[in-house]
Amino acid sequence: MSSTIIVNTPVLSGAGALYRKHGLTAKTVVIFDENTRNLFRDQVIATLEAEGFRLLELTVPARETSKSLNAAYRLYATMIEAGVDRSWNLLAVGGGVVGDLGGFIAASYYRGIPVVQCPTTLLAMTDSAIGGKVAINHPLGKNLIGFFHMPELVLIDPSFLRTLPEREIFAGMAEVVKYGFIADRTFLDWLEEHFDRITALKEPFLTEAVRRSSSIKADVVEKDFRETTGLRATLNFGHTFAHGLEKLAEYRYLRHGEAVTLGMICALWLSNGLGYLSEKDLQGGLDLLARFRFPKGVIKRRFLAHSSEALLENMFSDKKKLDSKLRFVLLKKPGEAFLLEENVDDREVLKAIERARAFVATAAKH
Amino acid sequence: MSSTIIVNTPVLSGAGALYRKHGLTAKTVVIFDENTRNLFRDQVIATLEAEGFRLLELTVPARETSKSLNAAYRLYATMIEAGVDRSWNLLAVGGGVVGDLGGFIAASYYRGIPVVQCPTTLLAMTDSAIGGKVAINHPLGKNLIGFFHMPELVLIDPSFLRTLPEREIFAGMAEVVKYGFIADRTFLDWLEEHFDRITALKEPFLTEAVRRSSSIKADVVEKDFRETTGLRATLNFGHTFAHGLEKLAEYRYLRHGEAVTLGMICALWLSNGLGYLSEKDLQGGLDLLARFRFPKGVIKRRFLAHSSEALLENMFSDKKKLDSKLRFVLLKKPGEAFLLEENVDDREVLKAIERARAFVATAAKH
Repeated sequence: MSSTIIVNTPVLSGAGALYRKHGLTAKTVVIFDENTRNLFRDQVIATLEAEGFRLLELTVPARETSKSLNAAYRLYATMIEAGVDRSWNLLAVGGGVVGDLGGFIAASYYRGIPVVQCPTTLLAMTDSAIGGKVAINHPLGKNLIGFFHMPELVLIDPSFLRTLPEREIFAGMAEVVKYGFIADRTFLDWLEEHFDRITALKEPFLTEAVRRSSSIKADVVEKDFRETTGLRATLNFGHTFAHGLEKLAEYRYLRHGEAVTLGMICALWLSNGLGYLSEKDLQGGLDLLARFRFPKGVIKRRFLAHSSEALLENMFSDKKKLDSKLRFVLLKKPGEAFLLEENVDDREVLKAIERARAFVATAAKH
Repeated sequence: MSSTIIVNTPVLSGAGALYRKHGLTAKTVVIFDENTRNLFRDQVIATLEAEGFRLLELTVPARETSKSLNAAYRLYATMIEAGVDRSWNLLAVGGGVVGDLGGFIAASYYRGIPVVQCPTTLLAMTDSAIGGKVAINHPLGKNLIGFFHMPELVLIDPSFLRTLPEREIFAGMAEVVKYGFIADRTFLDWLEEHFDRITALKEPFLTEAVRRSSSIKADVVEKDFRETTGLRATLNFGHTFAHGLEKLAEYRYLRHGEAVTLGMICALWLSNGLGYLSEKDLQGGLDLLARFRFPKGVIKRRFLAHSSEALLENMFSDKKKLDSKLRFVLLKKPGEAFLLEENVDDREVLKAIERARAFVATAAKH
């Protein structure tokens, strides 16, 4: 299972020919959130109309609660009433919320219509829009209801990032750097060299960073689509810690990428503490992660203010507390991650968190 | 994509070894409707508990409205609260409603857990439980929200049919006979010979009819899973007419199999009227279909009372009225169906309906 990923500016011009080439009709449900509608609607719709597309436009609020069964229910109704049938496809223009909701709708409408993802955040361009994981939330948990529904196309226009706040750029950059850590030492070195250019959205560095990140993600997904070999699990480098931090922050006060960055700092220390990662490689990794400019108040309140024990406790999902073990992705060296099969002693985890806290506290002073 | 189908009595004993063989854990959400719970719960649960299964039992009302997003929402909640994670699987014990709802839940919970279908009606055993089409209804239309989610196993125990009312047996028999018409002349002849024994649930005839029907369905599905070649479409023999009849009956007063039987009578006449089916084969097919014992009042009110024009009009789905054409599956000869690509003149369709009405009116007198 694979998608065609196109990274280009402007990516939507020529959509007609591109859709035809990929067996997609020129009948498209376009879904925006309120923000992406304001920013990109005119450009997207004008381009598609010029190419002769028949369109149905949908807009959802730009917030996590749009990923709900209720929202899906309303969108289904609009689509049914507009006569959308299985000869149509769906284009999701937005970040993770629109991509997930749009993918969910496409996966389930008439037992599945094709979806094209047009991600507008750095996180979506390099991660969530790629790989076919789509889901909505249940009041009892995030992303619990969903499917694997591969996009036919992922259309990425890095120029869409010019409207993104700096905080979101750094949050997205977390996943970019993650790909270097888990899969590509050369890319990691290149990221280190051009870190400031990329986060300042300088071309061709930005496009190259997006292209290589999306390509690594797609490659991992293709090799292990249903997460059976452990390879896809390496995409969760830093995420076991990050999930605990996001939960402590009530899923609101910390960006996912911020949590992942802090989580990778913990994971580097754990990789070193368990004897897998050398001191030198640990230090190199930490130096790179120290370059992320996150709001200091957020780091203080949402990371340093918590005890290591509180973080550890929140890393377990509620329903698994009784009988589950935490799974960790560790580094052997930069560019080479693996899913640790054995259980890790809580004391080692706590030690890694302590060291990460000390490192972040020191870095935050500069 | 294929499922293992097991037809046997008792089919659930030895489930432990069977599940292991198919890579399924002994952690199962069992979903019943109120009827199948009353009839089969003790037997099913006792068998699984004796095999050491960890179980979560769910029950839904035995009616079409259980196939709703609301019902799914409540079941998700119960599963989440019970700690069901992706290491579990789901067993659907029931007819079309439970099979569809259970399959929908399994397809979407945690992005998909395995489903095992244990159909309890003749229609489900030979048709709906096989092939991975699962769906729920939207108030604006039936089966609009759904997926392809192949069951890992289909466990069929024909002895479960002993509790089924005769009307449901004949309704299910419609699809059995359909398989003969579309794919297997030898099977069709055998059905004709043993029709009364099968509908009286005599063994080994009943089990053999179920086995061959489910096997034809599985074979067609495997060859054309996503309905791209036209082969899977032949499963809709008689169904274009049947959909109109079901709609005229408000989806309540006519069993699906009753509508399909009447629809096949129309489709035989249309096949003959358009020059594909010989007079002799037409007559042979009609003779077999005349043996179905449906309530005469139902046939009168739900078929003979409608004009041919009213039926034709209702064969179009509402949203397609403006720009769509009806698609027909026709017979060249018994055992050989095809999807007609060309449009059929309305007058030919009306003529076929008229002849079917005349035939049914005469047959109903005897």
